[in-house]
Amino acid sequence: MVVIMKPDAGDRDVAGVVERIKKYGMDVHISKGKERTLIGIIVDEREVDFNSLAALPGVDRALPILRPYKYVSRNVHPQGRTIRVGDVEIGKGLVFIAGPCSVEEEDTTLRIAEQVRQAGAQLFRGGAYKPRTSPWSFQGLREKGLKILAKVRRETGLPVVTEIMDSEDIDLVGRYTDVYQVGMRNMRNYSLLAKLGKVSKPVLLKRGDSAKLEEWLAAADYVVRNGNEAVILCERGIRTFEDFTRNTLDLNAVAGAKVESCLPVLVDPSHGTGRADLVPQMSRAAIAAGADGLLLEVHFDPDKAWSDGMQTITPAELAGVIRDCQAIRQVVTAKGKA
Amino acid sequence: MVVIMKPDAGDRDVAGVVERIKKYGMDVHISKGKERTLIGIIVDEREVDFNSLAALPGVDRALPILRPYKYVSRNVHPQGRTIRVGDVEIGKGLVFIAGPCSVEEEDTTLRIAEQVRQAGAQLFRGGAYKPRTSPWSFQGLREKGLKILAKVRRETGLPVVTEIMDSEDIDLVGRYTDVYQVGMRNMRNYSLLAKLGKVSKPVLLKRGDSAKLEEWLAAADYVVRNGNEAVILCERGIRTFEDFTRNTLDLNAVAGAKVESCLPVLVDPSHGTGRADLVPQMSRAAIAAGADGLLLEVHFDPDKAWSDGMQTITPAELAGVIRDCQAIRQVVTAKGKA
Amino acid sequence: MVVIMKPDAGDRDVAGVVERIKKYGMDVHISKGKERTLIGIIVDEREVDFNSLAALPGVDRALPILRPYKYVSRNVHPQGRTIRVGDVEIGKGLVFIAGPCSVEEEDTTLRIAEQVRQAGAQLFRGGAYKPRTSPWSFQGLREKGLKILAKVRRETGLPVVTEIMDSEDIDLVGRYTDVYQVGMRNMRNYSLLAKLGKVSKPVLLKRGDSAKLEEWLAAADYVVRNGNEAVILCERGIRTFEDFTRNTLDLNAVAGAKVESCLPVLVDPSHGTGRADLVPQMSRAAIAAGADGLLLEVHFDPDKAWSDGMQTITPAELAGVIRDCQAIRQVVTAKGKA
Amino acid sequence: MVVIMKPDAGDRDVAGVVERIKKYGMDVHISKGKERTLIGIIVDEREVDFNSLAALPGVDRALPILRPYKYVSRNVHPQGRTIRVGDVEIGKGLVFIAGPCSVEEEDTTLRIAEQVRQAGAQLFRGGAYKPRTSPWSFQGLREKGLKILAKVRRETGLPVVTEIMDSEDIDLVGRYTDVYQVGMRNMRNYSLLAKLGKVSKPVLLKRGDSAKLEEWLAAADYVVRNGNEAVILCERGIRTFEDFTRNTLDLNAVAGAKVESCLPVLVDPSHGTGRADLVPQMSRAAIAAGADGLLLEVHFDPDKAWSDGMQTITPAELAGVIRDCQAIRQVVTAKGKA
Repeated sequence: MVVIMKPDAGDRDVAGVVERIKKYGMDVHISKGKERTLIGIIVDEREVDFNSLAALPGVDRALPILRPYKYVSRNVHPQGRTIRVGDVEIGKGLVFIAGPCSVEEEDTTLRIAEQVRQAGAQLFRGGAYKPRTSPWSFQGLREKGLKILAKVRRETGLPVVTEIMDSEDIDLVGRYTDVYQVGMRNMRNYSLLAKLGKVSKPVLLKRGDSAKLEEWLAAADYVVRNGNEAVILCERGIRTFEDFTRNTLDLNAVAGAKVESCLPVLVDPSHGTGRADLVPQMSRAAIAAGADGLLLEVHFDPDKAWSDGMQTITPAELAGVIRDCQAIRQVVTAKGKA
Repeated sequence: MVVIMKPDAGDRDVAGVVERIKKYGMDVHISKGKERTLIGIIVDEREVDFNSLAALPGVDRALPILRPYKYVSRNVHPQGRTIRVGDVEIGKGLVFIAGPCSVEEEDTTLRIAEQVRQAGAQLFRGGAYKPRTSPWSFQGLREKGLKILAKVRRETGLPVVTEIMDSEDIDLVGRYTDVYQVGMRNMRNYSLLAKLGKVSKPVLLKRGDSAKLEEWLAAADYVVRNGNEAVILCERGIRTFEDFTRNTLDLNAVAGAKVESCLPVLVDPSHGTGRADLVPQMSRAAIAAGADGLLLEVHFDPDKAWSDGMQTITPAELAGVIRDCQAIRQVVTAKGKA
Repeated sequence: MVVIMKPDAGDRDVAGVVERIKKYGMDVHISKGKERTLIGIIVDEREVDFNSLAALPGVDRALPILRPYKYVSRNVHPQGRTIRVGDVEIGKGLVFIAGPCSVEEEDTTLRIAEQVRQAGAQLFRGGAYKPRTSPWSFQGLREKGLKILAKVRRETGLPVVTEIMDSEDIDLVGRYTDVYQVGMRNMRNYSLLAKLGKVSKPVLLKRGDSAKLEEWLAAADYVVRNGNEAVILCERGIRTFEDFTRNTLDLNAVAGAKVESCLPVLVDPSHGTGRADLVPQMSRAAIAAGADGLLLEVHFDPDKAWSDGMQTITPAELAGVIRDCQAIRQVVTAKGKA
Repeated sequence: MVVIMKPDAGDRDVAGVVERIKKYGMDVHISKGKERTLIGIIVDEREVDFNSLAALPGVDRALPILRPYKYVSRNVHPQGRTIRVGDVEIGKGLVFIAGPCSVEEEDTTLRIAEQVRQAGAQLFRGGAYKPRTSPWSFQGLREKGLKILAKVRRETGLPVVTEIMDSEDIDLVGRYTDVYQVGMRNMRNYSLLAKLGKVSKPVLLKRGDSAKLEEWLAAADYVVRNGNEAVILCERGIRTFEDFTRNTLDLNAVAGAKVESCLPVLVDPSHGTGRADLVPQMSRAAIAAGADGLLLEVHFDPDKAWSDGMQTITPAELAGVIRDCQAIRQVVTAKGKA
């Protein structure tokens, strides 16, 4: 941490800060300049709350220096971590997870699953519990939806990914799913994250739409610190002033997450753009930026999808996306660049 | 909802949209212009997902028209709703809720409580469960903290407000608190909101830092629709590019919430600015914008607070804030303007 | 500036940074910790570009510490600067600048001017040159509009404020206006700002909708450094994800600008909210936050205004706003708090 | 445009809106629903300001429907426009524009130019006039810099691109440059844009950091409407809450600009990320998203660059970026997908 004193801070103010820090048993280094004095403290600021230093007389600002996460740092696993789901090794080759936004009636869902499998998807996705902005909107088939997902796994052999919205449902959802998805609205539900640190299945952690990269990684640290190392990151767009797209898919954060952390990083261009006509381009761009795979909304009749049809592509489009992404992946990994 | 066709959409495309809408038993109104055709649908779009219409051929966009909430609309209670907590009627006169960020050791906490009471606060606040960005930071005293809050109530007579982070803790926290606070990170934890619709104590709902006004009100609708009408809104800043302040306290949304909804609206200038030196000004501004009260972080030694000291004011400063706010309230309510 | 080394940076990397800094004749202070090394450089980073240090081996980040402005700092004029326009001393009592968005036909404009004068406004505003997002929209009456403004001044005695969009028009506009307004779109038009540093009339500098507080003050520094000390700041809203209001009026920045700078600060709640029904509340809030006055769009027939009618109030509403604001100002300045 | 009435609007309010619209000679279509009445107006809202309708009694909102641009729409040139600069046809194959942030001393600049040419760049970039946030920072070599650029063109054969900051410099800069660059700070300097509509050289128009896609295209329309069809778009990042990167490079807008407009679209990953270590990934992603080329900051000694060294890559890295981008382009254009 660096404490920046005000221009008019006196020696006594500086001494006050130094004394406080030394009480915590920390070393300080003082840099005096023409306009300002800086006080550098070498301490793990993640474990001691030094923000209150900013309330001392003469202090202008207290800037944290270390990142708020440890276990998911790239330097913990410089080669990157891979996570096995069924036969798939996420983080190794590309992975494609596809399916409808909401789990629909059994026959529709099975038909979609079979089609995405044929198009090349290795996992199936579908929401049984749907977080909806309005309490008046469809909230998902719930346990009935989970049973349909189980049937999809049996019939197609595809492992399934579905969202967990409430820590009370961890056991129930765990009976049916292969991967717990934490949606963007729950990325900062630290209580849920801590409990998912106790389960033995992977967690797919979507980035919150107002979360900085370092906060997303800190959220992953919650799960890992509690015992579950199998975390998969998924960028799905942040909220900005731009409304041409539903969200602003932030591929900078994907490239950044690959630099900063050891976890696999997926991208959800369906929610990221909210527009089926931009999904193929942003899918390709995601892989070019270094993503390890995609999470995509797919339905054979997007305009009849129970939710989010405007951002849903068809199985035929999915096949084209997968083909292009595999070709781009070859460019990215040639000579070990990824 | 209004469906906007693409410039090159043909009669067949328009007929396709109309046919689909009529299947749902809805009326449509078509407006043909030189460049575009518009199709107006008069339907409660909150209960039917019409976004998938945007996937039909020839459709450019589908714009929702209605707000995503009903029960908390101003037109439901044109005079506004008031909520009783102990002897206080929130939404009537001004209410001041004050205390430390985290519940601290018993004697410190009691001393703060006594001082804020003397300064004019009517309720006490303090976090026993702390949502922290980093899993490495202090997470709160938990049940021990709740017990200290209960003691504060007994000794000072002040009702207490504390945060609920997990639906599994609803009973436990309810045994100690007078008001459940839902923090900004859980504003979209719809599962928690629905369960708080079943309790018989008021819910103080903070605005999410990436939530639009209408989404915040829709979150309140989750609680009310499930049976609990006692919801208090609290603006605490949104996330923007500006980093001079910790968040951007959005008083427009306060004025807007008073226009759009019937609920009382409080403001938390401590988190909203993150700077003790701006809290008095923004407290006054909040009341001038029409807020019904404030939620403030107060400690007799801000620089020793366990968390958030940089945004904490002293009891003496609190007394000044309350005095100014009461004077401004008189200006606001003269001739029934609030 | 503080240079933060990577966790794996070696002694040689640190030596490389130190060597480079010493070449510039600067002192460095090194703080070594368990995880990171920090290098503090005491230098006026506004005059030397140290960002390139971040390209040296082993460097993680280089953080600037000083603010990017000097002349407009609060510590230059701790009591604050006032700026005289006609008989008005901006920065002393409250000032109200009112008028239509665009200068309209002469009789309409004169009628509005007379009415705002009677309502208590001390200056008249109106756009002769209108920056419009679309080239297809009305662009202002231009020189004809300037002449109407001159007539307003003669007939009502009100000094006038109008926007300058192009440095080539500085002389022309200067022949008619009392204050040059720089709109938010030109806040970073540094060439225009530098030229306005050479004129002898005050400059009202609106905040850019993506400008941080420190960038807004740096823009003011451009004018002052070039010789013109008479700069008036005006907050008019920033761009965020919220679309209930046209912009997000940021009163935190108003309180912050009063702390950080010595310049008078006005607020434009008309553009800040884009909604006439929120203008009175946000006007009051602006003054409560410490603003020195308001810039308001007023028309006797808002629904017939040539532009921005949805955010325009009537002269009668203006009178009410002024009355309330004066009452709130008394609260703010009691005992020298502003 | 669609006018949405308030829930409690009466027949008289609706009649008032209709009467007003009919005065302008427009047709209206009324859709009455259970909760709201909608009034659709078919009119070119770009030429008439209908916002003032929102000030009429009973009106809730007035939503524009048409985009604020015409000439640069994709439907004007469905195949897309190409722009010739020297031997290069921008918009056809990929184009790479590279060079230092600022024009530096002649020998350094020439050496960089020769190296980027060998690496595969087809145009040279360098700033002679530098828009800097602080007036205390280096402002560019100005005319001396322009002369160095002219020498670069003579010696290397590369056409040059440099920034125009002031409409008074249009002739001067035009004597030296092949392409006028309009920086993000001037994207809404409509006066400059209109004047660049009169020149006979191409204009490279960077997106403002708070500009929506439709506002960026409307800015291009200013140039085209005034007579200059040769506009090249360049995405360079928007301002969001994320500070891991300097800006948030928005590739959604690149894919969107290719769908909505007929202009070539370039990407500047140097400013877009502010981090040299992310430039290769985001360069590849930009091309995968459909960009027609890149604008890159390159220097043989990034840590000695006069400005922006932290985001500058080396000529060797440039060669790698170009090679990868060409390979990705083949994937994108296979079967005419771009």
